[in-house]
Amino acid sequence: MQTLHVELGERSYPIYIGAGLLADPELLTCHIGGRQVAVVTNETVAPLYLETLMRSLEGFKVASIVLPDGEVFKNWETLQLIFDGLLTARHDRRTTIIALGGGVIGDMAGFAAACYQRGVDFIQVPTTLLSQVDSSVGGKTGINHPLGKNMVGAFYQPKAVLIDTASLRTLPERELSAGLAEVIKYGLICDEPFLVWLEQNIPALRALDQQALTYAIEQSCAAKARVVAADERESGVRATLNLGHTFGHAIETEQGYGVWLHGEAVAAGTVMALEMSYRLGWLSAADRDRGIRLLQAAGLPVVPPQDMTPAQFLEHMAVDKKVLDGQLRLVLLRRLGEAVVTADYPREILDATLRSDYAALAQSSNS
Amino acid sequence: MQTLHVELGERSYPIYIGAGLLADPELLTCHIGGRQVAVVTNETVAPLYLETLMRSLEGFKVASIVLPDGEVFKNWETLQLIFDGLLTARHDRRTTIIALGGGVIGDMAGFAAACYQRGVDFIQVPTTLLSQVDSSVGGKTGINHPLGKNMVGAFYQPKAVLIDTASLRTLPERELSAGLAEVIKYGLICDEPFLVWLEQNIPALRALDQQALTYAIEQSCAAKARVVAADERESGVRATLNLGHTFGHAIETEQGYGVWLHGEAVAAGTVMALEMSYRLGWLSAADRDRGIRLLQAAGLPVVPPQDMTPAQFLEHMAVDKKVLDGQLRLVLLRRLGEAVVTADYPREILDATLRSDYAALAQSSNS
Repeated sequence: MQTLHVELGERSYPIYIGAGLLADPELLTCHIGGRQVAVVTNETVAPLYLETLMRSLEGFKVASIVLPDGEVFKNWETLQLIFDGLLTARHDRRTTIIALGGGVIGDMAGFAAACYQRGVDFIQVPTTLLSQVDSSVGGKTGINHPLGKNMVGAFYQPKAVLIDTASLRTLPERELSAGLAEVIKYGLICDEPFLVWLEQNIPALRALDQQALTYAIEQSCAAKARVVAADERESGVRATLNLGHTFGHAIETEQGYGVWLHGEAVAAGTVMALEMSYRLGWLSAADRDRGIRLLQAAGLPVVPPQDMTPAQFLEHMAVDKKVLDGQLRLVLLRRLGEAVVTADYPREILDATLRSDYAALAQSSNS
Repeated sequence: MQTLHVELGERSYPIYIGAGLLADPELLTCHIGGRQVAVVTNETVAPLYLETLMRSLEGFKVASIVLPDGEVFKNWETLQLIFDGLLTARHDRRTTIIALGGGVIGDMAGFAAACYQRGVDFIQVPTTLLSQVDSSVGGKTGINHPLGKNMVGAFYQPKAVLIDTASLRTLPERELSAGLAEVIKYGLICDEPFLVWLEQNIPALRALDQQALTYAIEQSCAAKARVVAADERESGVRATLNLGHTFGHAIETEQGYGVWLHGEAVAAGTVMALEMSYRLGWLSAADRDRGIRLLQAAGLPVVPPQDMTPAQFLEHMAVDKKVLDGQLRLVLLRRLGEAVVTADYPREILDATLRSDYAALAQSSNS
């Protein structure tokens, strides 16, 4: 088992990574303050792991709250089901909420923990690769609004994060790839040696080689923990974690939440950021194509929806949280392994990026 | 103008108290970081003060969001109107939300500020006595849930609080009395000399004597600021601010939000706390009756709804936020001017308190 520490003063917490951790009661119970626990999970994950988790919680008064599965349910109505479950079971402010599932469950259970009686304890048990390397680290919680993704939420840190790598064995291949989009992101924004390692080990990761997975998750969490520790509330460097996300969110919003997986939209969005960095003269065509090839090797889409117009992209990007006083800031790459957040780019380069022929680029980058 | 400072480290903020402050642009604008401002108010307050406030905000991009008036609207559906307004006007994370109105507006606008894009700046402009002395100080924000009051919310501090005492001239008499319930509370829990002052000055306060009002608001805010500074997240002494609230919330919940004003329910709940403290042998009958007389002199109800049974009280009190691991903690008075929070009382004393004849008590305390 590996243990990372996210350093945030009095809100610091550990991340445990290893195979079979879900069945280890000690790791959970040492972070539970009271006698009440509420496990929030969904209809897909519950049949797989809820029973194992419940066995680790013997002796506590446990309520389990099973939500419908999917990004389309990341809204107020579903959040309300968590509050209903907590209030019906009379959970008080010393209760601990455990999020068992992917990023949607983590975001919603975390936001519920931030808001229930103005804040209760919270433990993350992410079961998808995406949530293990991304949404379980950093304290971002929230729900979607019909007018924008993650527009309502809180920065709220868990007491602990438990990553059981064995849970990836039941993950659909498409979702494994979606998780790899974020893993690759860490290489692109801040770790060129990791990028090289990924170019060599993508096949092992897709084949669920446990050693490769453990290493990739560890590197990813460590990278994110470093960035978050330096900038908890995203006033500066933390925004680089959103590489591909501004374009990607526009894709998700336009297509309707849940049609593209988050990681898939981020992958296509990352290709757009690579292309824009190339057009700015920061990346060579060869480096841009290296990035595109790696995303393709991970089984990810590298072409944005062909029916989306530049106007549609701009409309959705205008409500992005990185907009400050009307200026659209974008995460771009100075070189492979170094991201910057900037609003200082010629508008025509953004327009050209939105009009690029990504289908042709996908083809040529592989030739 | 009086200025108090609530000391909370990097979340410290000033409270300005005085007549006509609403028309002073400086006090507001020095706390606004960006160019966007959203004023959240309601249909009752908007015609009275929105225009004056807007004049103080010239030069900013201001959106005004006018909500329906009343505690029954302190719910998710109404909160959603704030998010809709912010997103439609494309407010980014540097926007400042100004709450112009009573406690409901402050709680909802504050919670919206805590959640919008995971947290934006927030200024309180409370226009009722209750919100001036209570909900504008301390950072408690939130909404009601069908199963409990204030069950969903956040601790979130404003950048500043602006109390214009002149705004009390348009406040209905019943609401002025409701505010006095909280003013009296500060005397009861921690300031016996202030209690004596109140016994002499209640008529002046009800006649809107500006000097008396300014003094009472100042003393109340200072008392609350002291308690909050010592215990921001209500782990200890802050809970004494809830004198009368556990019984009072039960009344509000049972009667349906908005039928009794919050301050009215607190007044009746305070009488119950006085009675229980008397039954525990902590207060003399004379001191209990002093408290009851003061509440009566303020025009407040001192008899709980006669049709509410002890079982109904207990049912609603069981979901109170002061319940910890099943133990119901109550705020009681050791003596006039000293409150304690305790779960250490004989159950039969609580039962007897719930069965007391408050109508008779109200009559005899005045004889």
